[in-house]
Amino acid sequence: MKFCSNCGEPVSLKTPAGDTKDRWVCDACAIVHYQNPKIVVGCVPERDGKILLCKRAIEPRHGFWTVPAGFMELGETIAQGAARETLEEACAEVRIGHLFASVDVVEAGQVHLFFTAALMSDFAAGDESLEVQMFAKDEIPWEDIAFRSGTFALKKYLEDAGENNGVHMHEISFRKGRD
Amino acid sequence: MKFCSNCGEPVSLKTPAGDTKDRWVCDACAIVHYQNPKIVVGCVPERDGKILLCKRAIEPRHGFWTVPAGFMELGETIAQGAARETLEEACAEVRIGHLFASVDVVEAGQVHLFFTAALMSDFAAGDESLEVQMFAKDEIPWEDIAFRSGTFALKKYLEDAGENNGVHMHEISFRKGRD
Repeated sequence: MKFCSNCGEPVSLKTPAGDTKDRWVCDACAIVHYQNPKIVVGCVPERDGKILLCKRAIEPRHGFWTVPAGFMELGETIAQGAARETLEEACAEVRIGHLFASVDVVEAGQVHLFFTAALMSDFAAGDESLEVQMFAKDEIPWEDIAFRSGTFALKKYLEDAGENNGVHMHEISFRKGRD
Repeated sequence: MKFCSNCGEPVSLKTPAGDTKDRWVCDACAIVHYQNPKIVVGCVPERDGKILLCKRAIEPRHGFWTVPAGFMELGETIAQGAARETLEEACAEVRIGHLFASVDVVEAGQVHLFFTAALMSDFAAGDESLEVQMFAKDEIPWEDIAFRSGTFALKKYLEDAGENNGVHMHEISFRKGRD
């Protein structure tokens, strides 16, 4: 960050009053530009005992396999984000189950959240995938999985099929009032 | 967002090639400025059957009670963030347990994640708290809880004490290599 997104003037690293960390602060309008971790949402789509994986058509890790996952967008829940990524990458509809794994990727400033999911439709390679394929649980291409967070999610999913874990999920809408 | 944080020139809302949503794109250097949801991390600190709550000294919801929680920072895991917020707001050390609740606050662009926690130290009001107090489980001030996400977390915590839920947690460090 070099310039203020509010007024266009230069920013400097300073510790604001009452804060304990350096932040990008505008030299002109004094706005503090906080930077926070991003959320990656994904799922493990299963049908008939097989798991859907996508071969990546983009960097990083072009040509490696991944569970459907990507950056959460504004305007959606984490479960909706996981379903949207599956639609985009695998042209597939899923019924999202429960959140069963969380992976902190501190140095990337990311938190990866993974859901169980039931595959509900046909599938095909989306724009970001070279191909999409169903894998039997003893045929997962472990050596060719794109990201360690996906490997973790797949391993934990196979250990207990997501049966013994999951958090209470809830959505809050301002339009629905305070309770 | 009005100006590019990279070059200081004006930005416009456009759908970048290969994208499906409008983004803030720099008119001069063409950088795409993605905006994503933020993570709020919190915990329910318990000791001797009582729960620690903080009375807020800041807006929003000044004077209302909350579990310790706040925006996750870069450079920490979600569990570390929940512990840091407890230290800041209640001057208290906790041993974080497991992630047991997730609340989507879509209209605020936030995801709130709550952990179980064991209170391990004394406590006192931090800068953002008017007071900090232990409440017996039948004395929670339900009418005066600051945020609906905190109410949800407290209710679910009291329903099963977090015993029957939780996700597999993992941290990935680039320095530790790929596996």
